[in-house]
Amino acid sequence: MRILAKDLKSAAEKGEKNAVLSGWIHRIRELGAVSFIVLRDRSGLVQLVLDAKCDLTLESVITVRGEAALNEKAPGGAELRVTEIRCLSGAAPDLPFQVNGDVSRTGLEAVLDRRPLSLRNPAVRAIFRVQSTIIEAFSAYLRENDFTEIKTSKLVSGGTEGGTNLFSVDYFDRKVYLAQSPQCYKQMLVASGLERVFEVAQAYRAEKHDTPRHLNEYVSLDVEMGFIESEKELIELEKGILARVFEEVARKNSGDLELWAKNGASVPKPEAVFNAPVIPYEEALGIANEESAKKKGARIFDINPDAERYICEWALRERGVDLAFVNEFPRRHRPFYAYPLDSVRTMTFDALFRGIEITSGGRRQHDYNAQLEALPRFGVKPESMEDYLSIFKYGCPPHGGFAIGLERLTAKILGLANVKEASLFPRDRRRVTP
Amino acid sequence: MRILAKDLKSAAEKGEKNAVLSGWIHRIRELGAVSFIVLRDRSGLVQLVLDAKCDLTLESVITVRGEAALNEKAPGGAELRVTEIRCLSGAAPDLPFQVNGDVSRTGLEAVLDRRPLSLRNPAVRAIFRVQSTIIEAFSAYLRENDFTEIKTSKLVSGGTEGGTNLFSVDYFDRKVYLAQSPQCYKQMLVASGLERVFEVAQAYRAEKHDTPRHLNEYVSLDVEMGFIESEKELIELEKGILARVFEEVARKNSGDLELWAKNGASVPKPEAVFNAPVIPYEEALGIANEESAKKKGARIFDINPDAERYICEWALRERGVDLAFVNEFPRRHRPFYAYPLDSVRTMTFDALFRGIEITSGGRRQHDYNAQLEALPRFGVKPESMEDYLSIFKYGCPPHGGFAIGLERLTAKILGLANVKEASLFPRDRRRVTP
Repeated sequence: MRILAKDLKSAAEKGEKNAVLSGWIHRIRELGAVSFIVLRDRSGLVQLVLDAKCDLTLESVITVRGEAALNEKAPGGAELRVTEIRCLSGAAPDLPFQVNGDVSRTGLEAVLDRRPLSLRNPAVRAIFRVQSTIIEAFSAYLRENDFTEIKTSKLVSGGTEGGTNLFSVDYFDRKVYLAQSPQCYKQMLVASGLERVFEVAQAYRAEKHDTPRHLNEYVSLDVEMGFIESEKELIELEKGILARVFEEVARKNSGDLELWAKNGASVPKPEAVFNAPVIPYEEALGIANEESAKKKGARIFDINPDAERYICEWALRERGVDLAFVNEFPRRHRPFYAYPLDSVRTMTFDALFRGIEITSGGRRQHDYNAQLEALPRFGVKPESMEDYLSIFKYGCPPHGGFAIGLERLTAKILGLANVKEASLFPRDRRRVTP
Repeated sequence: MRILAKDLKSAAEKGEKNAVLSGWIHRIRELGAVSFIVLRDRSGLVQLVLDAKCDLTLESVITVRGEAALNEKAPGGAELRVTEIRCLSGAAPDLPFQVNGDVSRTGLEAVLDRRPLSLRNPAVRAIFRVQSTIIEAFSAYLRENDFTEIKTSKLVSGGTEGGTNLFSVDYFDRKVYLAQSPQCYKQMLVASGLERVFEVAQAYRAEKHDTPRHLNEYVSLDVEMGFIESEKELIELEKGILARVFEEVARKNSGDLELWAKNGASVPKPEAVFNAPVIPYEEALGIANEESAKKKGARIFDINPDAERYICEWALRERGVDLAFVNEFPRRHRPFYAYPLDSVRTMTFDALFRGIEITSGGRRQHDYNAQLEALPRFGVKPESMEDYLSIFKYGCPPHGGFAIGLERLTAKILGLANVKEASLFPRDRRRVTP
């Protein structure tokens, strides 16, 4: 019966003479007639001691049998003294990527070009173990709060943001588009009486620019909730989600965080999340300008990437947490569906984490007549929005929602420089494989 | 503070004089000077008693305040005697769909055309509450078994099934395709050392036929697992998943199942799932033909939809469960990557539930040379599969996997006649809205 690398020490403590391990050959070191093999499995690395030369190649998959023995010098405090070795799958010797190397010394393009192999690197793999925990914690927290998970179509006849930046799909004899966001569907489902919904799914933006913060296909953690008064309840909900996410990552992925320690990988304490400031837009702009002035930076007229960085630095210094919520964005910066706070401001917000926007959201206009009236001022023809408007025509509660970018949140937790590193198979303007 | 419909009775028992409820006006009945309003919220229906005429329209969203009172005749055993009523969102009077009607009397096309409103019908909404539980139980069971959740790209440069039935996407200056399945990525991630992965995501098939069992966009519950000997371990894993799914649906969705009781909505007992037969292909064909002969049906040469139905009927009669696994499919019926059992048969399987295939899967070829050799026999050029083949070139454990169609499983639990009913926003050859 196979055991995992992480369980070898306890097998050794029990005096197990016949332990079986399976995995990949991560490293081989020959010392005279003895070979020390580092074996990699899904739980980690473990040392095998073989009284012979090892004629297998790195990355070959093997099953070994032997005596589990304590050894303080071995990683994990134990090693397997091999009595039997069987190769399940030999690796070709021309390995085009150094799996057991320091991936931070390899260029991003090489890491992405060689994805099938770079994903074998323990640090790279760790990124996606953290990501899996984020999805789990996000979903669990919302379910506990009576949210229903939904799966909406990604093939739509138009965009919520007005038809720009859409990828078109040849759908039988017509064109449809890849959804930029499930927002319209989330709103429909709140109005359907589910009231509280969430979705974890791909979203698409046909933006041509290539920056360390953008992906053309990303995973959106979407939330929508009925019977709210303002964006403040959404901010509270997001704090609850993030606190849970950080708590679970700290609990389940401590080893994964360690692998990125030199990048500053860490999660805020859950208590700190609830201390994160909620700053009205004008005030946030003031803070950004003060911070910028201190550093002799340029004047800031908008919550741009520089402002996001400054506001987070301020929050860390003043509140002890690298997280801030900016709310009450002016109408001119928000889409037509943003709910007005007054004639100038809206009940909207962004969440900024470690210098980058990870969330945009807010209360939505739910009043049919008010929406109908507002549309022309945004250059949107009401006729083109008939399906959307029908949500509000037949009774829709006050509601709002937001979305968290999964890759951005992952990247910021681990200290990754580029959001593409936090996508298993990132898509950008040039990259569509593997 | 708002309470939910389901909690009104306990509020009444506590003598609550000032309860607040919010929701949609589901039904209004006037009896002299008194109005009986059925209010619908995310938890269910509840009766409001108003000492006045109600001048609000059906589907308007209201907040009411009043005394919670026990009343055996009211649904749920309690009612709210309203002292204050506030309309949050009035519904237009021209409601184009009868939300409070019997949806089974409405044609499928009307239900789908009027999706924003038909989703308000409690029975329709129930479908998606069940679906949410299926996703939750599937994910939880796999996480407990050390699986990592993955999110892979849906934009691919080719199809795993050889390039037919693909939707093409205009991706900047080139064509890419919507992924039919994450299989290639799942295999890559097993080989990366994650060993055990799952994904819940949309999959796309550009098939032109329109049947009650097909969708052009569906949600695939995908699983892939390393270090297996044969498809039998996958069948055991799927039994564990299904048993958990059925257990959780029974526990969390009993009310939802009741709403579809007349369609025979129910879930098998978890114990029964483990009793489901595993029938080798040739034997399954024999069973199908015996059943067909009994009913003077046609001779069956393949596990076609008729055979699927017959085999399930047999399993229900002989084993007490409407679930069967057929394994050892002949090579000619399976794709090039199916792992051979011998020269004729493969280590593959289908799961049949209540007369329909809900899963296809099997062990995959993991040997680079064997795969390279097999490809031309299937008319596939090895040059076109370079990325795929690279998975096996550098050490890949024996592995396999399967996918469960979410909509099919949902439809079969609830007794829905058409799989489209189990998709929030189904896409078929003609339907791309809402």
